[in-house]
Amino acid sequence: RKLDKTRQDTLYFDSYSDVTIHEEMIADYVRTNTYRTAIERNSELIRGKVVLDVGAGTGVLSVFCAQAGAKKVFAVEACSIAEQAVKIVRQNNLQDRIEVIRGTVETVDLPEPVDVIVSEWMGYALLHESMLNSVLYARDKWLKPGGLILPSKAELYIAPVCDPVVEDRLHFWYTVKDQYGVDMSCMSDFARKCIMNSDITMNFVSIEDVLSHPARFAELDLYSVTAEELRSVKGHFRCESFGCSAVSGFCVYFTVTFTCPDKQQGLVLSTSPFKPDTHWKQAVLYLDAPVSVEQDTLVSGEVSMFPSEDSARHICISVDFTIGEQKRQTKIFSIPDWSSEAQP
Amino acid sequence: RKLDKTRQDTLYFDSYSDVTIHEEMIADYVRTNTYRTAIERNSELIRGKVVLDVGAGTGVLSVFCAQAGAKKVFAVEACSIAEQAVKIVRQNNLQDRIEVIRGTVETVDLPEPVDVIVSEWMGYALLHESMLNSVLYARDKWLKPGGLILPSKAELYIAPVCDPVVEDRLHFWYTVKDQYGVDMSCMSDFARKCIMNSDITMNFVSIEDVLSHPARFAELDLYSVTAEELRSVKGHFRCESFGCSAVSGFCVYFTVTFTCPDKQQGLVLSTSPFKPDTHWKQAVLYLDAPVSVEQDTLVSGEVSMFPSEDSARHICISVDFTIGEQKRQTKIFSIPDWSSEAQP
Repeated sequence: RKLDKTRQDTLYFDSYSDVTIHEEMIADYVRTNTYRTAIERNSELIRGKVVLDVGAGTGVLSVFCAQAGAKKVFAVEACSIAEQAVKIVRQNNLQDRIEVIRGTVETVDLPEPVDVIVSEWMGYALLHESMLNSVLYARDKWLKPGGLILPSKAELYIAPVCDPVVEDRLHFWYTVKDQYGVDMSCMSDFARKCIMNSDITMNFVSIEDVLSHPARFAELDLYSVTAEELRSVKGHFRCESFGCSAVSGFCVYFTVTFTCPDKQQGLVLSTSPFKPDTHWKQAVLYLDAPVSVEQDTLVSGEVSMFPSEDSARHICISVDFTIGEQKRQTKIFSIPDWSSEAQP
Repeated sequence: RKLDKTRQDTLYFDSYSDVTIHEEMIADYVRTNTYRTAIERNSELIRGKVVLDVGAGTGVLSVFCAQAGAKKVFAVEACSIAEQAVKIVRQNNLQDRIEVIRGTVETVDLPEPVDVIVSEWMGYALLHESMLNSVLYARDKWLKPGGLILPSKAELYIAPVCDPVVEDRLHFWYTVKDQYGVDMSCMSDFARKCIMNSDITMNFVSIEDVLSHPARFAELDLYSVTAEELRSVKGHFRCESFGCSAVSGFCVYFTVTFTCPDKQQGLVLSTSPFKPDTHWKQAVLYLDAPVSVEQDTLVSGEVSMFPSEDSARHICISVDFTIGEQKRQTKIFSIPDWSSEAQP
């Protein structure tokens, strides 16, 4: 089933019309506070300047920029949440400096080029919903040469993980006989096929379930990356298992980095399982069945991320991997299309 | 958007192809153990008899019936989970007494009429997914005169409730200024409209959030109710508030009762908030805005449940209510059609 572009966009923009997603994003302290801090730390580069906020949502980043001294902020938002952004701008008495523009960044007309682009464009597994394309479009069309992009770098990581919840769920069917007197252990294999499927599952991975140091497999420089390059983001990885365990799958997560004039390293917004939780959680990719590893077992391969053929906003992740002495395998994952799914 | 019947059925039956829903149902101890106990207590009426299990799923109720001495059990299941039921029947060495039949009860041909119909047909808010129609069809076509139906009675209840989670979510927007220095309090009104909408929300209601004794508003006798009567299940209710609070909405829940030869009252499977949790949770219907009540404030009205015009398997609930001195209001609720919804 191939969705036409208009239908895809309608579904995409509709999903931001509900308050829940905005509540989740604002309540995500790691996200919102890192943006706030990054904007404050860049106030020297923002003061008196013109800013474009791509996909402004409720406009909170635009307000941060105005508070950091921006002369003018264009808050571009395609969804009806723009109406709330207008109210919030007025409530904070910033209507002279923030202009909320309802429309897509690809179609809106700004009165002038901008000095700064700020955007919170990251989706699940970084690229799901691919709003980054809109940021790159805005960069090429509206950013002055030498302008600032916040954030300016994104990095992708992978690590093998075990998943005790999946293990419990597969074991559950062996417990039914004791509980109800019916042997349902044969369901465990069916459960494995249902649970360890090709969906990209968004979950919080616990630190103790990460089985090796994560490996960085890709880096995107937002000043130079092209939309064409986003059609295939890939890289190799090589991990060594910490100890004896069973690999249920891989976890993929990202960081984005804000350059800061006063900080060599930049400010990092991380969605790592080793850092405080964010609403992005981690992307979990299950193998077809758990694979045992020992200490220092090599887990290596290549990850490739690309847009789904059915819907360009949906990401697919292909993992080509070898675990220890096992032969190389490939599994392709995608985010389930909830819009075509039956209800429970 | 009106789904054609075939598409509706495909979506409906597909949703039972995943292990998760079956795991949830089997793991629901209240559900599975009440059926097990009811079948055991009726073993005198089941022993040596022919049983029809409508919508057998994994076949667990069929196994209970065989264990209670049934001569023959026809386990009718339309979804592919029937393949797992076949394996489970074999694993329990009951293949001589349980025949798994893949198909809908409306189309399958049984070799003989049955003495007993057992079915776990209850959906959210009892009637969502309206599998009860299939049970009534099976009763009229296959049940011998004087045959047994398990369960044989369903009752529906309503009570006014407050919802502290909704209150917290509406209050959240007033806390943003302290946290990030941006006044977003104007979002609270938008949040209220999004959250206190016309969806039937499935939630666990805490005992302390139920604001009056629940009122029973409808009763269905499975021996006599007709499909036509299911097209409008309604009744009046009258509740008196325990004390001062704010009514966020109503909670609707059900019980089903199994007659037992050894027990005057029958065995009750309850989804009441005052009883242990089940996977059915409770159906919560939000008002447009909270309404204050004091001790003994009268909350009364009429509830009507009917199939959605868009999809006969989807239930709508209309509540016509008066709270204290407020004027009478009507609000119509439905279960959101997740199959046409965008993903977050």
